[in-house]
Amino acid sequence: MTISSAIQALTSLLGDQITTSKSDRDLHGRSESHFAEMPPDAVVYPTSTADVSAILRLCHDHDCPVIGFGAGTSLEAQTSALRGGIAVDFSKMATVIEVRAEDMVARVQPGITRQALNEDLRATGLMFPVDPGANASLGGMASTRASGTTAVRYGTMRDNVLGLEVVLADGQIIRTGTAAAKSSAGYDLTALFVGAEGTLGLITELTLKLHGQPEATAAAICAFDDMDAAVTCVMTTIQCGIPMARIEFVDTETTLAFNAYSGMSMPAKPHLLVEFQGSEASVAADAAQFGALVADHGGGDFEWATKPEDRNRLWALRHNGYYAILASRPGARAVVTDLCVPISKLAQAVEETRADIAASNIPGPILGHVGDGNFHAILLIDPEQPAEKETALHLSHLMVERALALGGTVTGEHGVGLGKLAYMAAEHGDAWSTMATLKRSFDPKNILNPGKLVQIN
Amino acid sequence: MTISSAIQALTSLLGDQITTSKSDRDLHGRSESHFAEMPPDAVVYPTSTADVSAILRLCHDHDCPVIGFGAGTSLEAQTSALRGGIAVDFSKMATVIEVRAEDMVARVQPGITRQALNEDLRATGLMFPVDPGANASLGGMASTRASGTTAVRYGTMRDNVLGLEVVLADGQIIRTGTAAAKSSAGYDLTALFVGAEGTLGLITELTLKLHGQPEATAAAICAFDDMDAAVTCVMTTIQCGIPMARIEFVDTETTLAFNAYSGMSMPAKPHLLVEFQGSEASVAADAAQFGALVADHGGGDFEWATKPEDRNRLWALRHNGYYAILASRPGARAVVTDLCVPISKLAQAVEETRADIAASNIPGPILGHVGDGNFHAILLIDPEQPAEKETALHLSHLMVERALALGGTVTGEHGVGLGKLAYMAAEHGDAWSTMATLKRSFDPKNILNPGKLVQIN
Repeated sequence: MTISSAIQALTSLLGDQITTSKSDRDLHGRSESHFAEMPPDAVVYPTSTADVSAILRLCHDHDCPVIGFGAGTSLEAQTSALRGGIAVDFSKMATVIEVRAEDMVARVQPGITRQALNEDLRATGLMFPVDPGANASLGGMASTRASGTTAVRYGTMRDNVLGLEVVLADGQIIRTGTAAAKSSAGYDLTALFVGAEGTLGLITELTLKLHGQPEATAAAICAFDDMDAAVTCVMTTIQCGIPMARIEFVDTETTLAFNAYSGMSMPAKPHLLVEFQGSEASVAADAAQFGALVADHGGGDFEWATKPEDRNRLWALRHNGYYAILASRPGARAVVTDLCVPISKLAQAVEETRADIAASNIPGPILGHVGDGNFHAILLIDPEQPAEKETALHLSHLMVERALALGGTVTGEHGVGLGKLAYMAAEHGDAWSTMATLKRSFDPKNILNPGKLVQIN
Repeated sequence: MTISSAIQALTSLLGDQITTSKSDRDLHGRSESHFAEMPPDAVVYPTSTADVSAILRLCHDHDCPVIGFGAGTSLEAQTSALRGGIAVDFSKMATVIEVRAEDMVARVQPGITRQALNEDLRATGLMFPVDPGANASLGGMASTRASGTTAVRYGTMRDNVLGLEVVLADGQIIRTGTAAAKSSAGYDLTALFVGAEGTLGLITELTLKLHGQPEATAAAICAFDDMDAAVTCVMTTIQCGIPMARIEFVDTETTLAFNAYSGMSMPAKPHLLVEFQGSEASVAADAAQFGALVADHGGGDFEWATKPEDRNRLWALRHNGYYAILASRPGARAVVTDLCVPISKLAQAVEETRADIAASNIPGPILGHVGDGNFHAILLIDPEQPAEKETALHLSHLMVERALALGGTVTGEHGVGLGKLAYMAAEHGDAWSTMATLKRSFDPKNILNPGKLVQIN
């Protein structure tokens, strides 16, 4: 009972749906971030839930690790094959099964990306708003409990997954949730699999909550004299309940990177990027109320983008932030940090992080979904200088410790993966053992993404 | 190791915090609905988390059932002591621990009621909006995953509990969640305890999401010629994304009961009761948009209630609906039904339910939180006529079967308790066994509200 015997059995079962080619394995062992490559021993491409069930049944029999794989965009090495085994790549399970426009619900396979889904929805007047930036797969987004720029308005994957089909460790197929808006019928298994990073089961179908495409949308960018003014403005905006569709912070370093990368000429200051959605009247009213707050905090004039192409340019700027920042230090790799604090602690958390980075010898632009109290520093390191990686990891460590000290969480949206595992005990205390109890009961052989999220053995 | 030895040990430990008086036991074995009384063997009144931990540790040692008890307002006999044991009454753990207005978060003990909390919040400009009608305790509301009239805008308890302190079966105390707006740090234990009906642990503290008290509120009632027009109007309203704060349906029978109970003179027709919240401008815009839809569906003129006292009268009408309906058949008891369907199936579900009730020989007014696809029939039975109870249970059965056939859930908000246990397998299929697996791992001795929610032995 080994990984190689599992591969042998899978090969007999699935033929050319499984591969052990080096290029395929390498592709599935790579991370978007600074982690070492940890390729699986084989990659399998199921085309149906029945395939996934057969794969798990077999791997369960052979005690072989199984790691779900979507678009490979996770940032904490969630899909690294820490103990080898089989990567289950969902790229061939990527269709929209059903759109029920009248119920504002879609059923999709896990491999479809959020952009492909929204393309498919365009004519329906509906959209799936969760937007982590990367064109991630929906199965991966659910497994990581992803969020992003629009969470301040539409919530995270926790709020937008109504139900799931999941294959459990031994191959059993279950369905959770319904297409009804709410239910009190028993344990919330849907919420349990969302954010479980493939350690409790593999998601083979999602029932998603859709939202109406807004009648009117307006986006704007405005500069602030200093970071504290911008962040305090965000805190006040949230506390006033202005229904922002997005409210993003970028610091001066990020602004400069945007200018260089996209040929812009924004002033060398921190900025807020915001979006309003609703009816023409409500967008105008919300924008006016926000404008007054910006003025109170010494912010500059808005630069408006109401036409779709201008708006897309504005958000492309934000979405390409990671690449713009990477390009600002040629040859650099990034250590991407992620934390989330109660909104009242946001200015302090950003300010102290800024000071730590300034005192180091590496660049680290800060940007984030500050409406949720969630922000990132993109720490740029020279891969040839091991000391820089040490510095970056130390800065990340200080950020995480600060998040905990301020009553926040060690990850707002990137998940645990390998990068945040060491902090789970500090964040959760004894509840982390409860998570291990739960994992043991769902996956007694510990074959599902072993070594991640909980400590079992 | 028996219930009586547990009571003995608890008495030594807690003195006069425990009682075995008949009146106390009876009070805790009673249900708001049609279920037989099942009193516990003793009632204990903890005053701290440490008390609850000691109680559970001891009951765990003695294999003694433990049932959490809040305000006793649950409708499916969730707190019935099916196998005897100890009721843990949280009425002496009912304080607001902390209000963090700047984070829009409150920490409360489980015994506090929603009205008491909102009283406490009044001066802060914040509110806790989840409103199941009854003045339930927050711990009970979380355990039942309660919702009610405002869920269409603010969500259910699932959406408004950020974190918990929970005492597990063996007395261990854990904390889940943080005061940050979101997190991707591991399994969503908070969501697991919300809706678990006390079968996985006892909630000893809740961190709740608060919302700003709206600047402007307007409520209105309007009549429709027939039920189908009213319900179709609701479906369209939801699909158009008009941000209703409440949208409630009452049928003609309920309207007549309101008239008799509250001395009103509404036309003998189905009605919608609605509320808009926001800024003065957005309330006016939303109301105008909704008004146009009402006119499209042949609805009558709105009767507006903008002054707080008029609004309170309107919602008192709705909240007293259960009592008004009970009073419409003197001496009757009620079998309260609850189901939730995808919004597109709402008109069909209500219509067919109406026809079933009309074909029976008992009255059953229909009302509900139709914005969520959730409605109730209040079936009125003469307690002296066992055949009527049979009829009511059969009608409830037909409703539940219909909800499942239409892709909905057997309970939108009342929970499982004893009334919906028989339908868990039909709704969840194999996932119900997964729930049992989970229960076994959290409570291997099955002492927490045994016999409820899952089938263990």
